[in-house]
Amino acid sequence: MSLLALLDYASVLVFALTGALVASRAQLDLVGFAFVACLTAVGGGTMRDLLLDRDPVFWVGQPAYILIASGAAALVFFTAHLVESRYRLLIWLDSFALSIAVAAGTGVALAQAQPPVIVVLMGMMTGCLGGLMRDVVCNEVPLVLKQGELYVSCALAGAVAAMIATGLGLATLPALGLCALVCWGLRAGSLIFGWRLPVYKSRPPRTRG
Amino acid sequence: MSLLALLDYASVLVFALTGALVASRAQLDLVGFAFVACLTAVGGGTMRDLLLDRDPVFWVGQPAYILIASGAAALVFFTAHLVESRYRLLIWLDSFALSIAVAAGTGVALAQAQPPVIVVLMGMMTGCLGGLMRDVVCNEVPLVLKQGELYVSCALAGAVAAMIATGLGLATLPALGLCALVCWGLRAGSLIFGWRLPVYKSRPPRTRG
Amino acid sequence: MSLLALLDYASVLVFALTGALVASRAQLDLVGFAFVACLTAVGGGTMRDLLLDRDPVFWVGQPAYILIASGAAALVFFTAHLVESRYRLLIWLDSFALSIAVAAGTGVALAQAQPPVIVVLMGMMTGCLGGLMRDVVCNEVPLVLKQGELYVSCALAGAVAAMIATGLGLATLPALGLCALVCWGLRAGSLIFGWRLPVYKSRPPRTRG
Repeated sequence: MSLLALLDYASVLVFALTGALVASRAQLDLVGFAFVACLTAVGGGTMRDLLLDRDPVFWVGQPAYILIASGAAALVFFTAHLVESRYRLLIWLDSFALSIAVAAGTGVALAQAQPPVIVVLMGMMTGCLGGLMRDVVCNEVPLVLKQGELYVSCALAGAVAAMIATGLGLATLPALGLCALVCWGLRAGSLIFGWRLPVYKSRPPRTRG
Repeated sequence: MSLLALLDYASVLVFALTGALVASRAQLDLVGFAFVACLTAVGGGTMRDLLLDRDPVFWVGQPAYILIASGAAALVFFTAHLVESRYRLLIWLDSFALSIAVAAGTGVALAQAQPPVIVVLMGMMTGCLGGLMRDVVCNEVPLVLKQGELYVSCALAGAVAAMIATGLGLATLPALGLCALVCWGLRAGSLIFGWRLPVYKSRPPRTRG
Repeated sequence: MSLLALLDYASVLVFALTGALVASRAQLDLVGFAFVACLTAVGGGTMRDLLLDRDPVFWVGQPAYILIASGAAALVFFTAHLVESRYRLLIWLDSFALSIAVAAGTGVALAQAQPPVIVVLMGMMTGCLGGLMRDVVCNEVPLVLKQGELYVSCALAGAVAAMIATGLGLATLPALGLCALVCWGLRAGSLIFGWRLPVYKSRPPRTRG
């Protein structure tokens, strides 16, 4: 439980930074920064907790999450102009937030002994929904849907890795570490080396003709 | 209960196909297809279950829904290039999914003996929200809001028809069949014959002047 | 409890009017008006109730809310063409709805004796989320994020004012009145006199250089 709370704290912090960076692209004021930061930071975990009927939702029971997200927003508001490329920073922070949040969601569902499909899905949702809300609300192209990049796939792979690892008898802590590592490794590979899955083309490739 | 589960399965399957077709328009990869398909397939029913405090949410208790939606996404990924007009197919599949989902939502609320307004609203929400999420996330013009077409109205009419029919003593099965039929008939009429309701115009029509 | 229900009714009514006005800008039909009006009217309070695990959600337990929202939608559908500037009316009605809803959300969380951060956040969410959903679904620029205007800040200030006032021993009724007044006063000042907070600029202002 302590490990899971720690993962939630870390993912809230890093996702809040990404939310504030997107708010800086929309040139909002400090309260707007905090709003987008909180939405991004707790969005995925909130859906996870509502769906798994955890009571109370993680940040309702522990308001420190909101204070952390607001503090992160203030930090970005006053220092983001020092950053060379805010978009680059955003993309990389988002990759960390994604990986930690997938581990957090997977861990919560594992602790509830949910069936494998639900464990994997909760990991993916916790990881992807906060960023999706951030991008839909701020009218950015959702990273989730960005063509030719791995994103949801990374979340899927991380959650599946954790499932298999615990199935093979690995303890929760290393299994969730593996989850975050697999997820982040794939995302980083996609960003640096252009790793991708084949995308749908309306004309079929020759090999299938 | 068995009938209601069957309706949920059918609406998940058909909505997942529409989600995957929208994903094909956005040229996503296979995992992206599955993501949009699942969001579309379970979105409406999830809101219904959260609002009616059904525990657990239908697909959390029965992971087969997610497997069906993912399978449908894979089917579309590998075969959609065979289809002449994907948009036409999307619109018509969506009309079936809408009708089935309205019946599913209405049925669940009827089984809980909710008041008539809530029954009708749950039918409408279950029918409309999955497609709305699909369109908002993928940045399509929401079918729900497409000007000069019946959509939400079809859901309303179907749910009201089921309400009245059960009020007159009809059994659940034929009442929900009637619901789907009314909803689909109106939607098909709107698509084929251009049936519509008068829309708001900033200048009032002569007859009201 | 009676006061809280009254606040919910008032915010539902006024938010429904704003939703219908946005629907008129999208030239929807009568059912489309009712759909957007209901979404706007109950969106924020629904999230509040789901997060605070209030059972049932306020409008599920009392369908009159939906009828009021639908009635407001019909009123706008048939009379909005009489209004000189619908956008002006929308902005001002929204300012009233925001203020009332913030008071409603704050009041519910206070009645549950939630910690201060959660009280403030529930006030902000109840006030801001309905309008945010309306704007995202109808593809308007969200008022929440409109650059150079106070919006979320007004909600924050109102909720904080109510927190402090009850902390100083003020009764609930005047505290919530103060909440709405502070919120509306700031919003009106922002609309009339251009009050604003400094927004983020990628180049830092001289004073910080």
